[in-house]
Amino acid sequence: MASVHFNRIALIGIGLIGSSLAHAIKARGLTDHVAISSRSAATLARAEELGLGTSYHANAIDAVRDADLVIVSVPVGASGAVAAEIAPALKPGTILSDVGSTKTSVITQMAPHIPDGVHFIAGHPVAGTEHSGPDAGFATLFDGRWTILTPLPDADPDAVAKLRAFWEGVGSMVEEMDAAHHDKVMAIVSHLPHIIAYNIVGTAEDLETVTESEVIKYSASGFRDFTRLAASDPTMWRDVCLHNKDAILEMLARFSEDLAYLQRAIRWGEGDKLFDLFTRTRAIRRSIVQAGQDTAAPDFGRHALEQK
Amino acid sequence: MASVHFNRIALIGIGLIGSSLAHAIKARGLTDHVAISSRSAATLARAEELGLGTSYHANAIDAVRDADLVIVSVPVGASGAVAAEIAPALKPGTILSDVGSTKTSVITQMAPHIPDGVHFIAGHPVAGTEHSGPDAGFATLFDGRWTILTPLPDADPDAVAKLRAFWEGVGSMVEEMDAAHHDKVMAIVSHLPHIIAYNIVGTAEDLETVTESEVIKYSASGFRDFTRLAASDPTMWRDVCLHNKDAILEMLARFSEDLAYLQRAIRWGEGDKLFDLFTRTRAIRRSIVQAGQDTAAPDFGRHALEQK
Repeated sequence: MASVHFNRIALIGIGLIGSSLAHAIKARGLTDHVAISSRSAATLARAEELGLGTSYHANAIDAVRDADLVIVSVPVGASGAVAAEIAPALKPGTILSDVGSTKTSVITQMAPHIPDGVHFIAGHPVAGTEHSGPDAGFATLFDGRWTILTPLPDADPDAVAKLRAFWEGVGSMVEEMDAAHHDKVMAIVSHLPHIIAYNIVGTAEDLETVTESEVIKYSASGFRDFTRLAASDPTMWRDVCLHNKDAILEMLARFSEDLAYLQRAIRWGEGDKLFDLFTRTRAIRRSIVQAGQDTAAPDFGRHALEQK
Repeated sequence: MASVHFNRIALIGIGLIGSSLAHAIKARGLTDHVAISSRSAATLARAEELGLGTSYHANAIDAVRDADLVIVSVPVGASGAVAAEIAPALKPGTILSDVGSTKTSVITQMAPHIPDGVHFIAGHPVAGTEHSGPDAGFATLFDGRWTILTPLPDADPDAVAKLRAFWEGVGSMVEEMDAAHHDKVMAIVSHLPHIIAYNIVGTAEDLETVTESEVIKYSASGFRDFTRLAASDPTMWRDVCLHNKDAILEMLARFSEDLAYLQRAIRWGEGDKLFDLFTRTRAIRRSIVQAGQDTAAPDFGRHALEQK
């Protein structure tokens, strides 16, 4: 029996994160009723085919009625519109949260719509894959990963504790921080890597001297790693770029500055500078593996997987 | 029985690639004798402990004596010194090759030392992991990957065919191209990705506002992918940067130009430009998976691996 239980959980948006929540909620028995809504009729129909929920609603407002937990899992640019739509049906005591990759913008968009007595606590499960849509979800996505909650200073401690228990219930570990700091952390650990990955794949595609077929054939030498991130959902990532602009631009500036330094070292044949950088970056990989945040198997375990 | 057979194969250098060759040669029965040399006494002793070869030699010249195939697997900056050292003991008819990630520089360094009658054909197996040293090798590293041979215009066709059969014998597919083109292709598919990965990990480490512990905890959101490449062998990658300078600088210039365009689109909120790039990069991932050069499993199969 789970240590936290809700009468009715509404999932607004049923892509990778929403559908993973649906699987995990069911697997851990966190509620009697999962009400699912999607603004896409095709996505909603697919969610029903997959049996992800208890009830299915074309209008988000019907899904949230009588829910004591509402999780909004939509591209961050749509957060305000969803909040405006569901606000009239949110009952006092309901916990409203989201899973967006940017937090300042989401809070700015959603907070003005929230009725008194509703506990709005923004959140972000730091987990995902490059796949998207209701078929992409799986129950163990959050296992061993962190979820960051960014409650406002006046948030109700009991509601925060209950939301924390929910995320722990679906397998996650939970951390709290303020929204602005979250956005800076994510700018470097998630947003910049995705932007760089999209960029390098674009650069490779545009070359005149190297064919796309060559890029594909020899991609195992490094390039293929970047194509995974660059295959992520375009709408989600467009919105992230537009809604965490300041932090992303700061990280991009630092990255480009460091790259210019490295480029100059290559041009002038300064092997010692290259060797120093290439040596100190090894340690952080070991720390990530030790922290249980990546596999120790070489090549992300691709070979191990192939040989099973 | 393998379709190609050598009396004695000398492996000069026994790191990730050399030791993987040793495993694969033994597994496929491509020779009666594997002679191993390393300039590091500790590495050589470890190779012997692991039983990677038939005989072990502190001096490379002793390993290559009577060998009909010699594969040099050392950081590319050491290629010339190794060629000078072994040249006096190479007998006519011997095939001499290497596995270096840059080809123009290796040919320039090695070719002047090669005695008449010895077939020098440079090569590069486009395969690897982030691990290094004699313990990192495994027999299936080359399975389904490409090896690029860059024979000089006057290379003996029979010798090229025999070297091709060797690489096919250890599981690889084989392609031929000229050295300059190889270096351009690798600059974009391998060298730039590694340099970018090293750079972003360095940028993240140097931040004052985000702690290293936060970078590690939340690395599953993208960053951890880059730490794998950034954990590669520093000596090897220093040498690659120094020995493929022109092609790398060209690719870096293009990458930075494209990144400036992307940065400007973020600054000015040009969502359409972002969406266009983020959409067209998805296709290349599908092509790589279809070509058998990466797993279709989400997140490189990390979850699949954890759940076994």
